Amino acid sequence: MESKLRAAIVGSTGYGGVELIRLLQSHPKVEITSVISSSSAGVPIEEGFPHLTGIIERELDGVDAQEMAERADIVFTATPSGVSTKLVPQLLAAGLKVVDLSGDFRLKDGAEYEQWYKHPAPADEYLQRAVYGLCEVYGERAAGVDFISNPGCYPTATLLGLIPALEAGWIKPDSIIIDAKSGVSGAGRGTSLMVHYSEINENFKAYKINKHQHIPEIEQVLTDIAGAKVTVTFTTHLVPMTRGIMSTMYAGMLGQHTEEDFIELYRKYYAGRPYVRVRNAGIVPATKEVSGSNYCDIGFATDARTGRVTIVSVIDNIVKGAAGQAIQNLNLMMGWEETLGLGYTPVYP
Amino acid sequence: MESKLRAAIVGSTGYGGVELIRLLQSHPKVEITSVISSSSAGVPIEEGFPHLTGIIERELDGVDAQEMAERADIVFTATPSGVSTKLVPQLLAAGLKVVDLSGDFRLKDGAEYEQWYKHPAPADEYLQRAVYGLCEVYGERAAGVDFISNPGCYPTATLLGLIPALEAGWIKPDSIIIDAKSGVSGAGRGTSLMVHYSEINENFKAYKINKHQHIPEIEQVLTDIAGAKVTVTFTTHLVPMTRGIMSTMYAGMLGQHTEEDFIELYRKYYAGRPYVRVRNAGIVPATKEVSGSNYCDIGFATDARTGRVTIVSVIDNIVKGAAGQAIQNLNLMMGWEETLGLGYTPVYP
Amino acid sequence: MESKLRAAIVGSTGYGGVELIRLLQSHPKVEITSVISSSSAGVPIEEGFPHLTGIIERELDGVDAQEMAERADIVFTATPSGVSTKLVPQLLAAGLKVVDLSGDFRLKDGAEYEQWYKHPAPADEYLQRAVYGLCEVYGERAAGVDFISNPGCYPTATLLGLIPALEAGWIKPDSIIIDAKSGVSGAGRGTSLMVHYSEINENFKAYKINKHQHIPEIEQVLTDIAGAKVTVTFTTHLVPMTRGIMSTMYAGMLGQHTEEDFIELYRKYYAGRPYVRVRNAGIVPATKEVSGSNYCDIGFATDARTGRVTIVSVIDNIVKGAAGQAIQNLNLMMGWEETLGLGYTPVYP
Amino acid sequence: MESKLRAAIVGSTGYGGVELIRLLQSHPKVEITSVISSSSAGVPIEEGFPHLTGIIERELDGVDAQEMAERADIVFTATPSGVSTKLVPQLLAAGLKVVDLSGDFRLKDGAEYEQWYKHPAPADEYLQRAVYGLCEVYGERAAGVDFISNPGCYPTATLLGLIPALEAGWIKPDSIIIDAKSGVSGAGRGTSLMVHYSEINENFKAYKINKHQHIPEIEQVLTDIAGAKVTVTFTTHLVPMTRGIMSTMYAGMLGQHTEEDFIELYRKYYAGRPYVRVRNAGIVPATKEVSGSNYCDIGFATDARTGRVTIVSVIDNIVKGAAGQAIQNLNLMMGWEETLGLGYTPVYP
Repeated sequence: MESKLRAAIVGSTGYGGVELIRLLQSHPKVEITSVISSSSAGVPIEEGFPHLTGIIERELDGVDAQEMAERADIVFTATPSGVSTKLVPQLLAAGLKVVDLSGDFRLKDGAEYEQWYKHPAPADEYLQRAVYGLCEVYGERAAGVDFISNPGCYPTATLLGLIPALEAGWIKPDSIIIDAKSGVSGAGRGTSLMVHYSEINENFKAYKINKHQHIPEIEQVLTDIAGAKVTVTFTTHLVPMTRGIMSTMYAGMLGQHTEEDFIELYRKYYAGRPYVRVRNAGIVPATKEVSGSNYCDIGFATDARTGRVTIVSVIDNIVKGAAGQAIQNLNLMMGWEETLGLGYTPVYP
Repeated sequence: MESKLRAAIVGSTGYGGVELIRLLQSHPKVEITSVISSSSAGVPIEEGFPHLTGIIERELDGVDAQEMAERADIVFTATPSGVSTKLVPQLLAAGLKVVDLSGDFRLKDGAEYEQWYKHPAPADEYLQRAVYGLCEVYGERAAGVDFISNPGCYPTATLLGLIPALEAGWIKPDSIIIDAKSGVSGAGRGTSLMVHYSEINENFKAYKINKHQHIPEIEQVLTDIAGAKVTVTFTTHLVPMTRGIMSTMYAGMLGQHTEEDFIELYRKYYAGRPYVRVRNAGIVPATKEVSGSNYCDIGFATDARTGRVTIVSVIDNIVKGAAGQAIQNLNLMMGWEETLGLGYTPVYP
Repeated sequence: MESKLRAAIVGSTGYGGVELIRLLQSHPKVEITSVISSSSAGVPIEEGFPHLTGIIERELDGVDAQEMAERADIVFTATPSGVSTKLVPQLLAAGLKVVDLSGDFRLKDGAEYEQWYKHPAPADEYLQRAVYGLCEVYGERAAGVDFISNPGCYPTATLLGLIPALEAGWIKPDSIIIDAKSGVSGAGRGTSLMVHYSEINENFKAYKINKHQHIPEIEQVLTDIAGAKVTVTFTTHLVPMTRGIMSTMYAGMLGQHTEEDFIELYRKYYAGRPYVRVRNAGIVPATKEVSGSNYCDIGFATDARTGRVTIVSVIDNIVKGAAGQAIQNLNLMMGWEETLGLGYTPVYP
Repeated sequence: MESKLRAAIVGSTGYGGVELIRLLQSHPKVEITSVISSSSAGVPIEEGFPHLTGIIERELDGVDAQEMAERADIVFTATPSGVSTKLVPQLLAAGLKVVDLSGDFRLKDGAEYEQWYKHPAPADEYLQRAVYGLCEVYGERAAGVDFISNPGCYPTATLLGLIPALEAGWIKPDSIIIDAKSGVSGAGRGTSLMVHYSEINENFKAYKINKHQHIPEIEQVLTDIAGAKVTVTFTTHLVPMTRGIMSTMYAGMLGQHTEEDFIELYRKYYAGRPYVRVRNAGIVPATKEVSGSNYCDIGFATDARTGRVTIVSVIDNIVKGAAGQAIQNLNLMMGWEETLGLGYTPVYP
């Protein structure tokens, strides 16, 4: 019997970390050998997360690159922005594979990172070394590498919804407007008035308009695809729900295209990619239809009156937008079947 | 002591009707003399709405124009689309004042009505006679008239957010994109899978993209303001909450304007209008901040990178988007203080 | 024109304080002359509560008894437990009237206070001086006094549901089991994992079983009514909603009584009390039916199979369970109409 | 390679049916060969349930026992009450195995069925033949049988929480009070005002007090365990959430027992049963901690003041309360590992 790949999870007391634990339970080639938290080392993980009782019961380890190197083959770093900047180079130096979920290595330009993230950027060497793991677009680049930077939640939904049309030259690059909405889990488990139940429930709010750190990430990829600088208008909103992201995207069309044209274009682009599902004409997806799963569902509405297309793309922000895509990236790195550990049917209702 | 204006409410078992009852309880110059429902005549209203126990307890009356003329001076018709088409002419003929909340008399062009509403249009005479009651824009037209067509919920939030900038020539008329979100009460009290709790909760969905019947209503007013045909892209979404609408609006700017410029422009436009509140720079409103009240709150984010402005406008869809504005229109018709019966502080949290 | 009573609110940045502001806006005999916060003195209140924009805009004052005595006639102390213990004696000494919402003065026995609240108790003089303001039961005691201790949210719903039956000798005092459920606003505006949206939403949890500090408050009153020591079983749960409390109460019946008997008994007991509504047979109230209002609604189910009665009592925890009852107490203290400032129809839906 | 057991699901357009589909996707020994709906035969299942796109795409079949016998080895009947009464005998006659989720065969006494369900009872032969599939209590009876009646959702949570204590003689059989709360999915996918989003959201309501059809089911089992007639007080409430049941149960203790005693008793009783998790002292479970999984989590609070124990038991009503336990029963019938197809970690948050 083949031995399993040993995985460590840094940030196991955050929502991304705990979702990695959930999903990896069903991965046939991976075993979790360390769950790590800088703040709660020594505490049994099921104390903070009783839902894991009887499933995974172990004490949280502290953050120590050497110990990780002894216990694990791969590390998922689901850490707050800024922490991975320092930790990942140590992990790579210790010979570990890394899938980083923090966002620290997504931008290739350190100056841009510092402008949007307000932290010092990682060393340029690592920014360049990191493979941006948007699986359905750059999946081939992941094979065999040891360091993946996992895309952000908003960028994943947004980019998968825009890239085929942009690449095909069907939409005007300077016309793109992205109206994004997220469930509250995207803000993490930290406490603040922003995530206080009584402030969120029965409320809908916009935040960080044109200021969200996912903007340069989206623009970097769209620019790469278009071959010329793309600038977007991007708004984020908080929805009174826990999981799910919807990106509603607007663009002026180049040429005349029907919904059916878009559907055909996208289905061709994503052929062989099990986790993008393109809806039939007249139908756009809702967030609950992907909840708990690694799917990104996409639908279209074209409008001859205005010459614009509206593209709706949904994901579960913690799965396809974080832990699920991280595992998908692991599978691609290792040359495994892309779907290992990800065979979850959406939980509905 | 002055006698009160006698009001009848048709559609008292819908959310718009029952909200009229709530608000009119505190109106010093109005008394409710008949609550009317075609489906539940003879039933005590507190049976279907126990929250009214001890507040208003009377049997629902049937729909009969002559009886209304005997019992009431004004009728609020909070009926499904298509019903008012036939009923309102009878009420007017009987000498009643009417504020119609159904949407049947908002469009001036009967052909356009039939295209979007899929019903036969009202007689053109009534389409022309109806005064479109967007209070902060057309309030002067309401004085002394006997028939107001109350604006739709989405149009109210959207138009109040766009008109000052459009009138000032600050935004490109052909660039307007409206991404609107509504709580579920906007769909009414009728039962369907669309409003089933388990289908809505922890879900976010788009619907009727570019097909909503509020599109021609918005375009009719914007065209009036701009003096030339305006066509918009308009998407509606269902938010897992009961009350509240947010319109997030995007437009290319003509000239360079900062957030502060927009704030000054809008505060000047809405000076003396107590129910529009323009937020300070850097702040956009959330729906809960107007919940239960007649306010429309507006905020701005300008973006020098893209040359666009993002305008956020929120209302309580049942108050400012229906019953509250209807009462505001009544006040304007009667020449009363605009705020009578509407002095509700938002319910927060 | 009569001058208004000047009111100060300590704890204006908490949910109880901000609700006092909402309700007092419509009180014809009270004006708010100071909003006070120990943590945010100098900050305009509408910064933290934008829903108050244009309604009440003033800087928060610091906590200073002398200043309050100059500016106000009455102080509502909506402070965390322990703060009022020290503040209220100063306010009374300065000649102010006080309605205390903190809970510090509800128990007559300081030792019991310290056992359940884990703080030092207030001086016994003040414990004895405080009038426990359960309006529909002890309302007569409020007339003319200068110091009311406002009941807790759970005790209000629970006691109003139990007292008539207990006083009538219809239920066994040692058989009372109270299964209580509250919306999250009851936990206040402070941030913690307990009130984190993602932890509460789509979740239902029990907490502080048999350990809640409202237990001795409930038992003190029931003991007073029964004339002999009453001990209850009391469980509290958090419901994924913002407002509302339901107490589902169980007791063995003494003698045989039908639902109709209970209804008659309670309607007689609460005759002339506008804020208790007793439902008809076969119907129990839901929390939304009192939301935003000062009502306590009560319903019954008797069970001949088990000889038990189930009593369901609901309130809005921030209104009847806090700010609303505080204003009702003010009205009783002043000899005003009990309903002044409280004429709010429940907000439904 | 071993061929798989072929399964048909009647009621595939209800929440129980669609959850069977989700769970069976991961069952290594079962394949779904027919999804059946009386109302939607001929319609592709993914039309009504787009979350199944790309996972299971087949037309819904009509209800025909002979066709089922050709296509399947086992039928899950997730039908409304009354339908299985007629259908199940046909399926058994055709040689099919049946797990019935409808409730029609849970009561052994047809007269009692008719009293509580208000339908004609199934033939007594089938009432007696049905094995009541409460896995952790009666699991041994399931081995090798061809007809299981799957327990109700409330009874599952309630009985697993009460049986060890009742069997041990630690609680008074005539003192049991059950305060149960359920998410809205328990009411099914049918539309009604009761499950209308705007009526449920931000609301908490009790229903069917002492009248729920799960009462005789609970009493039948408790009577079996106690060896003497047990009668309970039982209240059900609707929680504004989709999934989850909590039973908060109260009973007078016989003898003195601590929380630790109860924990030890229950852990011993459920030893070797992977889907019951007994919490540590001082901790009671919340519904989200089992969401999406087959677990039943149980916690205790004993109270020396009143001599009562409070037992809290939670399940996911659609998994352990319906589809999950049905699959667990299948596993027990077939002599398979109890956990096949049920290895889902709870989805948190």
